[in-house]
Amino acid sequence: MVNYPNGRSHPYLTSSQQNLLPQKATPLKTGSSTKSAAVFGKRGMNFEEEINATNDYYLSHGLAVVHKKPTPIQIVRVDYPKRSRAKITEAYFRQASTTDYSGVYQGRYIDFEAKETQQKTSFPLKNFHEHQIVHMTNVLAQAGIAFVLLHFAALNETYLLPASSLIHFYREKQGLKSIPLSYIREKGYKIETNQIPRIPYLEIVKKLCEVHQNF
Amino acid sequence: MVNYPNGRSHPYLTSSQQNLLPQKATPLKTGSSTKSAAVFGKRGMNFEEEINATNDYYLSHGLAVVHKKPTPIQIVRVDYPKRSRAKITEAYFRQASTTDYSGVYQGRYIDFEAKETQQKTSFPLKNFHEHQIVHMTNVLAQAGIAFVLLHFAALNETYLLPASSLIHFYREKQGLKSIPLSYIREKGYKIETNQIPRIPYLEIVKKLCEVHQNF
Repeated sequence: MVNYPNGRSHPYLTSSQQNLLPQKATPLKTGSSTKSAAVFGKRGMNFEEEINATNDYYLSHGLAVVHKKPTPIQIVRVDYPKRSRAKITEAYFRQASTTDYSGVYQGRYIDFEAKETQQKTSFPLKNFHEHQIVHMTNVLAQAGIAFVLLHFAALNETYLLPASSLIHFYREKQGLKSIPLSYIREKGYKIETNQIPRIPYLEIVKKLCEVHQNF
Repeated sequence: MVNYPNGRSHPYLTSSQQNLLPQKATPLKTGSSTKSAAVFGKRGMNFEEEINATNDYYLSHGLAVVHKKPTPIQIVRVDYPKRSRAKITEAYFRQASTTDYSGVYQGRYIDFEAKETQQKTSFPLKNFHEHQIVHMTNVLAQAGIAFVLLHFAALNETYLLPASSLIHFYREKQGLKSIPLSYIREKGYKIETNQIPRIPYLEIVKKLCEVHQNF
């Protein structure tokens, strides 16, 4: 069995997350696009934790194999001390060139990005970078399953929005800086999060696979 | 069109690789398991470059979307200088918990690890870690396509070995420290590398998909 967090005080962490946590009292930036790294990092980690716990649940129950990719780092300087392991002494966070999550569900390729916002009526498009949109377009062209998980923290609502709808909006509405919640509600699928696993996105993926060939 | 290297002097690098290259004169360790980091790093990069160039070819020709995952890094200390981007000042290379490459080919999930050796008659098993074997087992259970690309540098021969055969050998022959080349030749598929793309593994994947449901 997998243990899940009941609250924020003892969050469930995967090994990859534990390794990303600072072991000294330094703030840690996640891959997010805000300048308030410590604050957004914390916000991002909580939604991320829930998704990672969900993926752990799916893995341990043989339902899907989905992993978060490591944070891309640009390494500049490495020291090789004698009798000790290599130590990176200068490196920088890089923008991801693909999406954060990928894996396999019943033979099919799954690919998604997870983002959250404090906004209540729309989702800022700055959360998605051009090369991520291109990547999702490529995945769809190869008949992969691609989507985004959008969490409205202030509303405590989470949606699965198929990549096709995100890409369509991104390409058609270049002038707009955010996706209206009404569009997400129309084109996306609300995820009920009061259960185990916490973000049961696979239920929606399963339904969409039965109806459509592609996403 | 994609440019390919004719030699080693101007290797084709993906953006992710360029970011992994040291910008100062420090040796750079790859995810490999040897202690001679600089030497193995160089060896590893060359085979890796060819695979990444192959993936770039597949991507640009709409044949598959396969990416190398970022190198997993354990971050210990991050500085946030004013008016400057976050700087990682202490971090360490981590062992990968999954395989290096994943992606989608005609809707199906592809997952593989690429390794090379200087040995001429066998492939050292130390190149594969227990959790990678477990990961490949999970991928196969979810009907994903999983394999390893094995490069014998001294022989200039490259094989695709289905994960099922690797796992079988790994589980059955715990006492042995390496996989005999004869086993790889029997269970695997030789990749002709004198063409573009350099490591055309997708041709074998395609054939195996036509014959088998799983790998």
